[in-house]
Parts: sequence; structure tokens; C-alpha cells
Amino acid sequence: MLNEEYPSKLLGAAVEALANLPGIGQRTALRLSLHLLREAPEQTDALAEALLAFRKGVKRCALCHNISDKERCVICEDPSRDHGTVCVVENVQDVMAIEATGQYRGRYHVLGGLISPIDGISPSDLEVDSLVKRVNEERISEIILALSPTMEGDTTAFYISRRLEGVSVKLTTIARGVSVGDALEYADEVTLGRSIVNRVPFNN
Amino acid sequence: MLNEEYPSKLLGAAVEALANLPGIGQRTALRLSLHLLREAPEQTDALAEALLAFRKGVKRCALCHNISDKERCVICEDPSRDHGTVCVVENVQDVMAIEATGQYRGRYHVLGGLISPIDGISPSDLEVDSLVKRVNEERISEIILALSPTMEGDTTAFYISRRLEGVSVKLTTIARGVSVGDALEYADEVTLGRSIVNRVPFNN
Repeated sequence: MLNEEYPSKLLGAAVEALANLPGIGQRTALRLSLHLLREAPEQTDALAEALLAFRKGVKRCALCHNISDKERCVICEDPSRDHGTVCVVENVQDVMAIEATGQYRGRYHVLGGLISPIDGISPSDLEVDSLVKRVNEERISEIILALSPTMEGDTTAFYISRRLEGVSVKLTTIARGVSVGDALEYADEVTLGRSIVNRVPFNN
Repeated sequence: MLNEEYPSKLLGAAVEALANLPGIGQRTALRLSLHLLREAPEQTDALAEALLAFRKGVKRCALCHNISDKERCVICEDPSRDHGTVCVVENVQDVMAIEATGQYRGRYHVLGGLISPIDGISPSDLEVDSLVKRVNEERISEIILALSPTMEGDTTAFYISRRLEGVSVKLTTIARGVSVGDALEYADEVTLGRSIVNRVPFNN
């Protein structure tokens, strides 16, 4: 498909623009373009408008860096949330995933990534300074590290723990273990091993 | 993900607009939106502009119904193409696929679909009348049916052959057989069977 000429320059430009998006190749981009051509022009107008309004209007919450339509996000603005607990996550998707559980009533801090020397992401690229500042300025009693159990996640967690050394705040991390509903025999060894070492009282 | 509230109405609207596209779910739409947020605003502008210009400006060739930037497409306009041969295909992608082979020098006729009673697509929804009109008005000596070997493709081919009954034009269909490079043992029985029945002289 790549070597071929598009029958229309306008189609070629649309395909190229769509194929710039991650996970969308030339073939999918062509399929999407031709789909838009079959639908009413209003659908394309609506899509373009929604993307432009989003890209132009969306902000980062000045406090937690979650995305927001206003200066502060709906979670930070909510007086019923526990202001003493801050859950540190990598990105916006993680905030949404934790919110979807309905189990957390504190606030968040979005790092905007994880430390990864291979990808050239250093601590200064992340919102760690602003986290330390928040701990010093707000009355925060507990910081929950909810980062991926990867090399990058562990490195970032370790770095944050060092930055918070000497600060009077309880530092916790989310529990790792066998997934609810998973059979033991299918759990990987590291997870199963950790879930035995970090066992909790029955009925907890 | 579906039940969850987006932290920003603008994000929610962008996700919804993207998830309207075929094959793009809420999760992918969210990933794409957040990708656009990370990139420069100019990328979103370029995407929106390309889609709007395409949807507004692209035409259907008045002759073959291939998509085109002008009244007639580049293939129909090309004087070096064989005007006596017309290859009938389902859609624009098929034109591009055949063009990519570099083996065809005639012109096309894009039906815009295949007859499919289940999907409510009847012959009147397709560009069959205009094909019959072309055969009567232009000096066409051969019509090549290059349709999918499916129930819908066969039905459409049969319908077209009936519509062209009594018209002095050679009606052919593309060869079906074992793919070039495929081992016989992996070819399906129907294809292998047909390729034996429709065998061609060696050295052809």
C-alpha cells in the first residue's frame, strides 16, 4: 500500500494525517477516510471540531496535573474528597482506572511518565518537584505509590521515596498479588511469591 | 472504561467523536486523544484540516465513480490507458490494489458495494445502471469482473452478466487459483479444485 499513489491528493493527505496517530497504519487510515466519505459531512465536521476544541481548551490541573477543563480538576475541587491522601500515578488513564473502582476517596498526583533512561525520561521531566512541594505545603498524611510493577515504575518509586526522606509522611504502595478470580496455578511465580510473602490476615 | 466519567468534558467529547469511527473503541480513542495532547497543537490542527478538506473537496469521478479531486479521475483522464477495457470492482480500495500490481492498463468502474439482501443493499444502490450506460455509449470491448469470491460477489457478478445479456461485449472474470508462492498442501480445497478445473497451458 505504501508505494501506491492515491487517486486523490485530498485522500492522500487525510490518510497521511490519520496514519500519524499511534497504532494507525496506512491501511487503517484509508479505511477510516473512506468511512468518513460514506457518512454525512457533518460527522467529519463534528470529529474535527471535537479534536480542535479538546486540544485547544483542555488544561492540566495546577495542583495534581490531571487533565481538566478548568484551572483545578474536578477531583481536587471536590470538598468531599480526603485531602490528606495523595495517590501518585503515571498518567491520566491510571487516574481514570482507579476512579472506576470507586474504592478511593483521596486525591491524585499525575507524574506524566516514569523514569526511563532508555527513553531519555529523567526525573526532571516528571512532576516530582511539584509532588515534594505539595507534601511540604499541604497537610498530606499519606502518599500512595500506584506505579506499574516494571523496572521504570520501581525506579520511579525508589526515586520518590528518596526525595521524601525525612519528610513526615506515610509512604505506601498498592498491594500486588494474585488477581481476584484467578486460579493459583495460572499466576506467575513472582506474583504468587510476593502474594505469599506479603500475606494479610484472613477476613481483612 | 465505558461507565467512567472523563476528567474533562472536552476530552470526553473528543473520545466520543473518535470512537464513532469503525474499529476504534473507547480505549483506543482515549489513547489517541491523549497522544494528541502530548504532541504540538499543530498536529491536531493539521489532522482536522486534512479531514475537513478531504471530506469537503473530494469528488466521485463522473465516469467510473472512483474518488477524485476533479470531475474525472486521473485514470479516466489518462489518454495512455486502454479505453476499451473496463475492470468492475467493489470499491476504491480494490482500484488501488489492482493499480499497485502495475499489471492493468485499462479503466475501472467502481460499483460502490456488492448486492447483499441481508445488509439491505440492492442493485439500485450500486453503480450498475451507469455501467450498462457506459457499455452502450463508449467503445468498450471487454468488461473484467474483479469481485470478491463471496456469495455477495458472485450474486453481483451474476446480476451484471444478466444486465449485459445481448450486449456485444466480452465478459471475463479474474483468475482464481493457488496464490503465487503458496504450497499446494496449504491451499483450501475449493481454491485448489478450481485451479485444477481452470488449468492453463504451461508457459502461459
